[in-house]
Amino acid sequence: MRVLGIDPGLTRCGLGVVEGSIGRPLALVDVSVVRTSAQLAVPERLVTIERGIDARLDEYQPDAVAIERIFARSDVSTIMGTAQAAGIAMVCAARRGLPVALHTPSEVKAAVSGNGRADKAQVGAMVARILRLDAAPKPADAADALALAITHIWRGGSQARIDAALAAAGRKAR
Amino acid sequence: MRVLGIDPGLTRCGLGVVEGSIGRPLALVDVSVVRTSAQLAVPERLVTIERGIDARLDEYQPDAVAIERIFARSDVSTIMGTAQAAGIAMVCAARRGLPVALHTPSEVKAAVSGNGRADKAQVGAMVARILRLDAAPKPADAADALALAITHIWRGGSQARIDAALAAAGRKAR
Repeated sequence: MRVLGIDPGLTRCGLGVVEGSIGRPLALVDVSVVRTSAQLAVPERLVTIERGIDARLDEYQPDAVAIERIFARSDVSTIMGTAQAAGIAMVCAARRGLPVALHTPSEVKAAVSGNGRADKAQVGAMVARILRLDAAPKPADAADALALAITHIWRGGSQARIDAALAAAGRKAR
Repeated sequence: MRVLGIDPGLTRCGLGVVEGSIGRPLALVDVSVVRTSAQLAVPERLVTIERGIDARLDEYQPDAVAIERIFARSDVSTIMGTAQAAGIAMVCAARRGLPVALHTPSEVKAAVSGNGRADKAQVGAMVARILRLDAAPKPADAADALALAITHIWRGGSQARIDAALAAAGRKAR
């Protein structure tokens, strides 16, 4: 499966495309960051982000989109822009009928590093190792977007196996 | 001028279209509320809101869009959805090149009622009086959307007159 991971933000929005499946090596397809100037009005900035996401969806045709789940308790000065960028990302995916999953930062950190409190350097290093890159993707928003896509493939896969196991158990019980 | 006022919200998004200019009676063009079920996923709800806003923009071709400015200090349980609905509204307008203005709730209350702390009933009653309606529009989201459009016409007009006066003063000074 191919997943577009999105680390939403008004100033930098990380977009990472990863392909693969559980138990097999994952591959980096594309990684980029949409940047918008704080000198532009917010509506213009959001449209730039929308265009950037749409361009990746057009080009890479992912099977699903994984977006970082935003909490209202995050930094108040940036929370509104981050929430709005995340909303735009959801709409871009949902308009195409693509499944959207939200993963919390600690879920992502735990998935890629085994530690829900890993720092940015650890996440970057693990993303590089998992995707067999020479170095951690820069900036951190790019690495975080790839980590979201990796998390989605791994968690989605294990969830599918759990569902299949439960369905099988249900059939046996009948 | 014709203005679409948007009171953003995930459960109820008020949309009010008002036409008129400073010093002349304003007219109600349309008012409606886009509702989305909490049982749907957020991406689907945001797409429904996007479609509702796009439909009004297509049908009524406003000259500007006025959206309630959201503050991070609002109710935490609804702030994310409200911020995302506001972001979608901004994108719908900016994609068409329409000017977008954000007005705070107290600016809107002050503009329509003369009191920045007016309650919902007072705002609804003043909207009805200004637009010569038989009763306050229901629900409150509908009245608030109309109040936003009224505020935009009145404030925009006075701002334009201030700009014109300053430009004239500048010409005299030269």
